[in-house]
Amino acid sequence: MSIHLGANCYGKAECRLVRVDRDGPRHRLTDLTVSTSLAGRLEATHLTGDNADVLPTDTQKNTVYALARHGITAIEAFGLDLARHFVSGPVEQARVTVEQHPWQRLGDHSFARRGDETRLAVVTADARGAWVVGGLTGLVLLNTTDSEFRGFARDRYTTLPEAADRILATAVDARWRFDGLDVGWDEAYDDVRAALVDAFVQTYSRSLQQTLYAMGERVLDRVPQVAEVRLALPNRHHFLVDLAPFGLDNPGEVYLAADRPYGLIEAAVLRDGAAPAGPSWEWAGR
Amino acid sequence: MSIHLGANCYGKAECRLVRVDRDGPRHRLTDLTVSTSLAGRLEATHLTGDNADVLPTDTQKNTVYALARHGITAIEAFGLDLARHFVSGPVEQARVTVEQHPWQRLGDHSFARRGDETRLAVVTADARGAWVVGGLTGLVLLNTTDSEFRGFARDRYTTLPEAADRILATAVDARWRFDGLDVGWDEAYDDVRAALVDAFVQTYSRSLQQTLYAMGERVLDRVPQVAEVRLALPNRHHFLVDLAPFGLDNPGEVYLAADRPYGLIEAAVLRDGAAPAGPSWEWAGR
Amino acid sequence: MSIHLGANCYGKAECRLVRVDRDGPRHRLTDLTVSTSLAGRLEATHLTGDNADVLPTDTQKNTVYALARHGITAIEAFGLDLARHFVSGPVEQARVTVEQHPWQRLGDHSFARRGDETRLAVVTADARGAWVVGGLTGLVLLNTTDSEFRGFARDRYTTLPEAADRILATAVDARWRFDGLDVGWDEAYDDVRAALVDAFVQTYSRSLQQTLYAMGERVLDRVPQVAEVRLALPNRHHFLVDLAPFGLDNPGEVYLAADRPYGLIEAAVLRDGAAPAGPSWEWAGR
Amino acid sequence: MSIHLGANCYGKAECRLVRVDRDGPRHRLTDLTVSTSLAGRLEATHLTGDNADVLPTDTQKNTVYALARHGITAIEAFGLDLARHFVSGPVEQARVTVEQHPWQRLGDHSFARRGDETRLAVVTADARGAWVVGGLTGLVLLNTTDSEFRGFARDRYTTLPEAADRILATAVDARWRFDGLDVGWDEAYDDVRAALVDAFVQTYSRSLQQTLYAMGERVLDRVPQVAEVRLALPNRHHFLVDLAPFGLDNPGEVYLAADRPYGLIEAAVLRDGAAPAGPSWEWAGR
Repeated sequence: MSIHLGANCYGKAECRLVRVDRDGPRHRLTDLTVSTSLAGRLEATHLTGDNADVLPTDTQKNTVYALARHGITAIEAFGLDLARHFVSGPVEQARVTVEQHPWQRLGDHSFARRGDETRLAVVTADARGAWVVGGLTGLVLLNTTDSEFRGFARDRYTTLPEAADRILATAVDARWRFDGLDVGWDEAYDDVRAALVDAFVQTYSRSLQQTLYAMGERVLDRVPQVAEVRLALPNRHHFLVDLAPFGLDNPGEVYLAADRPYGLIEAAVLRDGAAPAGPSWEWAGR
Repeated sequence: MSIHLGANCYGKAECRLVRVDRDGPRHRLTDLTVSTSLAGRLEATHLTGDNADVLPTDTQKNTVYALARHGITAIEAFGLDLARHFVSGPVEQARVTVEQHPWQRLGDHSFARRGDETRLAVVTADARGAWVVGGLTGLVLLNTTDSEFRGFARDRYTTLPEAADRILATAVDARWRFDGLDVGWDEAYDDVRAALVDAFVQTYSRSLQQTLYAMGERVLDRVPQVAEVRLALPNRHHFLVDLAPFGLDNPGEVYLAADRPYGLIEAAVLRDGAAPAGPSWEWAGR
Repeated sequence: MSIHLGANCYGKAECRLVRVDRDGPRHRLTDLTVSTSLAGRLEATHLTGDNADVLPTDTQKNTVYALARHGITAIEAFGLDLARHFVSGPVEQARVTVEQHPWQRLGDHSFARRGDETRLAVVTADARGAWVVGGLTGLVLLNTTDSEFRGFARDRYTTLPEAADRILATAVDARWRFDGLDVGWDEAYDDVRAALVDAFVQTYSRSLQQTLYAMGERVLDRVPQVAEVRLALPNRHHFLVDLAPFGLDNPGEVYLAADRPYGLIEAAVLRDGAAPAGPSWEWAGR
Repeated sequence: MSIHLGANCYGKAECRLVRVDRDGPRHRLTDLTVSTSLAGRLEATHLTGDNADVLPTDTQKNTVYALARHGITAIEAFGLDLARHFVSGPVEQARVTVEQHPWQRLGDHSFARRGDETRLAVVTADARGAWVVGGLTGLVLLNTTDSEFRGFARDRYTTLPEAADRILATAVDARWRFDGLDVGWDEAYDDVRAALVDAFVQTYSRSLQQTLYAMGERVLDRVPQVAEVRLALPNRHHFLVDLAPFGLDNPGEVYLAADRPYGLIEAAVLRDGAAPAGPSWEWAGR
C-alpha cells in the first residue's frame, strides 16, 4: 500500500484583537477576531517532522497584532494586508478570515456592544493575486405576515397543512464574492446589508427559497462589484399554539418559537459572466 | 439515621413564547422565554410518588401560552399574572421568570433581532402578596479611557503593574428589587437601564468596584420605586500587546481581548429604610 | 435619600489550570477550573476608589498557580488551602470553587478527555473555620422503562395524558454539604456518585421528585460525612412519535428528544440533627 | 444585468431521534441527530415561489422518524436508507448527516451519557450510486510528553522559543471516505477510532502536522475500506506558568490551558489509486 499527503494547511485561529484609535478626543473602536491559515510546500513537517519551512502559528498571531499597529481601515483591507504578507517562500497561499464585532457609540470614549451580528472578510492570496469574500452572520430577521407556504409536493410521509399566513424568521448567513479589489469596502458592506434586509422585508414570500433568491438578486442588483452571493437561511419555525382546549381562539397571536429541528435553505446566486471564483471558496484540508 | 425533605420546588423552564399584536397594520412583537416554579405542600410526591397535588409542568407551560392570549403589556405584569394564577391549594408560592429578547422595528410587520441584551422579571407570589425583581443581562459596555487601577494591596504573589489608563469593559448583569407593585414597568425599565449606562460612561473609574457602586447609586437616585440593586460585573480584560520585539511602540492602540480568566465584581446597593426583601431573592432548592 | 453598600465580593473566575505529576514514568493529570472570591472590609474601593485593601484578582490567579506547584491531592483539599490562604487582614471570608474535568488514561503519559461530567468543590473559609460543599454536574442518566407519571392534579389548562411507561432522563446537578473536614475526599466523591447513580437506576419512578428524593436519601445513607444534598434535575423529555399517519405503530421505540422547555425539579434532602450549614450555601452579592 | 441561480439545496437540520430496542429485558439505546438536505430541479420555488417540486422539510423530518421504526443497525446504513429514499423525481441528489451520541450501559434499561464524542456518517446518494463518509468529533487527546517543536522558520515577528518537551493536546475532528459500501460499519468505526488514538499515543511528535499524518496513515494502514482521511486538529495550547517571581521552579508541572487563539492543522491523507471521491466532499450551497 502506498499513501500520500493531500491538501493541507495550518494557521492560528481566533486571535482576539481590539484596536483603539486615539486621534483626538473622539476614540474609534475596532473589535476583531482574526484567523490565519497558510498552505504551500509543507510536506516535510508532515512526513518527517522537519519544521524548517513552518512559520509558527505563534508568529502568525504576532503578525496580526503588529500589522494592526499601522491602522485598520476596513477588515477587507486588513485581511488583504495580512494575506499578502504571509505569501512568501514555501508559503504559496494564505487565507485570512476577519470577523468584526459591532459596537454602538455612547460617547467620545464609551461604547456598547451591538448584538451578535458579525461582518466577515475571507481573503485568499497567492502568487497570482488576491480574492475577497465579504460576509455577515447573525442577522436575525422576522416578518409577522406576507409569508405563505402552499402547493408543495406531498408523499406518504407528508402531514404538514398548507399555511396561508405564517411568521417567517431566519438568521442570515451570507457570503458575497467581489469581482475585484477596487472597492470601497465600507460602502459596499453597507449596501449589501441594506439590500439583504430590504429584500427580506419587501418580498411577499411563497417559500423561503423565493425570499433567499430575492435577497441574492437584490445584492447583485445594487452592488455591481459583487459577482456572487451565497446564502444559508435557517427557517426558524414559529408554531401557532392550539388554544382551543382552553376555550380560546388564536388568530395569529400566540406562537411557540422552536429550537430544533429547523429547515435550512442554501443557495448561490450569480451574476452572468462574472469573473471566475478562483480559490475564493476553496481551501485546503476541509 | 433519619432524614427529611428540605426546601423544594418544580416547574417548567424556558417556554419560548412569541406574541404578535395585530391591531391595525402596524404589528407589535413580543419575544419571551418564560420559566415557572411552584413550591408548597409537595412532600407526598417526593416521599411516596403520590402525585395528587402535582400540577404537571406541562400544564404550567399550557398556562403560559393561554394567559398570553389575553395580551402582554410589560413582562413584570405578565409575570405577576402568572405567579398569582399558580398560587392555589397545595401550591403556596410561585416564582415566574420572564426574559424578553429585543427586536428592532424594520417596518409595519418586519423586525430585526437587536442583540443579546435581555430584560428580566422575576416575580414571586404567595398568600401574603407579590414581589417583583427587574433585571437585565448582556449589556456589554466599554470605556477606552478614564479608568485606572492603582494603589492596590500587594503580597508575595502580586506581579500586576499599576495601570494609569486602561480599557474598562464589562457585561452588566443587574437585578433590581421594586419597593411595591404600583410601578410603570416600561418607564422604570428604561430609567434603570439609562442610569446604569450613564453611570458607567460618566464615572472616572479607580476600580470596577467604584464603577459598580456608582451604577447602583445612580439607579436608586433616579428610580424611586427601586429599593435595591444587585450587580455582577465581569472585568473583561483587554491587555496591551507588547510590540517592542517588532520595533513598534503601542500607545494604547492594540489590545488582546482575553476570554478567561476574568475578574468578577459583585455587590448589592440598597436604599436606607426600604421595604424588606421578603422572598424576592430566595427560592426553594438552590 | 440615603443609600448604602450591601453584601459584596470580588475575585478571579475560571482560571484554567492543568497539573502534571511526573514522579516516575506514569504521569498523573489534573485538569481544573478554579474561581476565587473574597469578601470583607471592602467599602473603601466601592465608595472612594481607594484600593489599599484590594488584593488584585490577578494576584488571586497567581496564587492559584503558585499553590498548585506544591501538589494537588483532592480538589476539596486544594480549595481549602486556597480559601484559608486568602483570609487575612481586610479579607474576612473567601470562597473558592474548583471544577475538575475528567480524563481517562490511555498510557503512561497519554489521556483522553472523558466527557463533560464535572466534579466540584465549593469551599468557604473565615475566622471561624471552613466549610466544604462537594458536587457534580453533567451526569446525564436515562432509564428506558420503570418510569410512570399518573394521578396528577388537573385544572382547566391540563391536557397531558397519563404515562404508564415513559423514558426518564436527566442531567444531574448535585451539591452535598460535608459535616466536617475529616473526610477522605476521593473516596467520599466516589461513594456519593455511586449512590446517585444506583438510586436513579434502581428506583421505580412515579415522579422525578420521587427519584430525586431517593437519590438524596441514598447519598445520606451511604456517606455519613454528608449532612445535606441539594439536587436540580431537569426532566429531559422524550416524546413518543405518532407514526400512525404513516401506517406504523410505535410501541415505545421511536422518540423525539426535546430541547426546550423542560421540567426542572429542585430539592434539598437533609440529615436530621446535622451541623448547621453556616455560610456553605450563602455568598455575597448574588 | 442578468443573474442566475447556482448550486442550491434545502432540508431539515438536527432532528433529535432516540430509538429504544426492546427485544427482551436488555434494552438497546440509539441517540441520533439527523439532518437531511435535497438538491435537484428546484429552480421554480426560487424564481417564482411555485412549490410543486418542494417536498416539505417537515416531511423529511417525518421520514426520519418513520424509517427509524424499521430499526437502525449502524448510522452509515441508516443514512444510506434515508438518502436513497429521498432521491426521486425532481430530487436528484440527497445528503443525510447522522450524528450518534454515545451512552454507556448501566443496567438492562439504564444508561449514562458518555461524553461529547460523536460518531458521524455523511451519506450522499444520486442516480449513479451512493457515497459514505464516516467521521468523529470531540475526541480530546493529550500527551504529557514525547512532543517537541523545534527548528522552525523564523522571521521578524517570531518570538516563540523552541520547545524540547511540551504538552500536546487536540480535539480530533476526523472524516474518512469509504471506497465502497460493502463494509462492516461498526467494526470499521472501531478500527478507525483505535487507529487514530493509537497513532496519537505512540508517535513521538516533532510537530502536530507529523502527528496528524501519522494518524491518517495509521487509519489507511489498518482499515482497507478507507480511501482517504481528512483531519482538522486544533492545537490546544498548554503554557508552562512562570513561577520564578514566587521563588518556585516549574519543571513541567503547572500549566495554563488556553482557550484562544489556538493553532489549527488541517490535512488530507489519501491512498494511492483509490476510487474517486465523487460528491463525497461537495455539497450544494456552501
